[in-house]
Amino acid sequence: MDLFEAIEERHSYRGAFVQEPVAEDDLRKIVQAGLDAPSGKNLQTSRFVIISDHDQLARLRSVLPDRPYIATAPAFIAVFFDADPQPSADQPYRFEVEDAAAAVQNMLLAITALGYASVWLDGMLRSEQRAEQVSSIIGLPDNTKVRILLPVGKPAEEYVRRPKKSFEERVRFNIWQAH
Amino acid sequence: MDLFEAIEERHSYRGAFVQEPVAEDDLRKIVQAGLDAPSGKNLQTSRFVIISDHDQLARLRSVLPDRPYIATAPAFIAVFFDADPQPSADQPYRFEVEDAAAAVQNMLLAITALGYASVWLDGMLRSEQRAEQVSSIIGLPDNTKVRILLPVGKPAEEYVRRPKKSFEERVRFNIWQAH
Repeated sequence: MDLFEAIEERHSYRGAFVQEPVAEDDLRKIVQAGLDAPSGKNLQTSRFVIISDHDQLARLRSVLPDRPYIATAPAFIAVFFDADPQPSADQPYRFEVEDAAAAVQNMLLAITALGYASVWLDGMLRSEQRAEQVSSIIGLPDNTKVRILLPVGKPAEEYVRRPKKSFEERVRFNIWQAH
Repeated sequence: MDLFEAIEERHSYRGAFVQEPVAEDDLRKIVQAGLDAPSGKNLQTSRFVIISDHDQLARLRSVLPDRPYIATAPAFIAVFFDADPQPSADQPYRFEVEDAAAAVQNMLLAITALGYASVWLDGMLRSEQRAEQVSSIIGLPDNTKVRILLPVGKPAEEYVRRPKKSFEERVRFNIWQAH
């Protein structure tokens, strides 16, 4: 799929997924797109767990809200990094969040181009200790924590695209406003 | 350009740029790709200033380090948002950094597909009050600050791609490590 078509086609999908497994080859292609994203100082801080095993999916669902895209997703991709990436003498600037977001954006585009759908799940992990519970289920190393989850599957429903602001509202040339 | 080709082709370019302006149409396409990125709660927190005017470029360069990709870039895209996006009662979770990073990743892919090159500049803005100085030059609203700058132009030099870790180092299926 053409890049610009993938960018325009990508959308947050919150419906149910078709009940069929995602081919392992496709999951690998999607996560490879994530690995290919840039990272601050080329530190490649994001790591990934692909969850497609029946029992692991059931454990994951047991700690997440009951939503169609969670209940029916045949696979999830978990993105994790340091649990608390604070600036230090060694690393005065941390880029874990940017690194993960860039990787997720590449993966969302790959998901779109391969005919799947997804939605970026982040906020729901930040409450009710869900990130900690998911991290434990997928066996993350100490001092790391899942930050983003992407359900992956073929969409079973039509989606409604949410409206976006116009170019003029969000972009200006050379100067935003004169002083 | 095919999505996966754009993802593989994209790289951080730190050489000099060819001395020719970037077509306004291309700059618009690139930033439109940024606007099309997802954002937390669809709040679309990232805003953009495209700098291509001769005098504005000179002002920008005067507060940035002397690097070939800064000295020669015929255009820059500045991404800005709230200067200090802290959680509050109204907004317990903030996604400004993720929103901006996803938009930047879309723009980097668009830059690649259109035959240009760029490099994600962020860390250099965080020291020596550079973000504040750039924000002032491009007239950003109060309480906002530039976070990321992308130089844009045709690359005048060969680039050296930095090595990446393997799939196996960064990805596992179903569980990272057994307890």
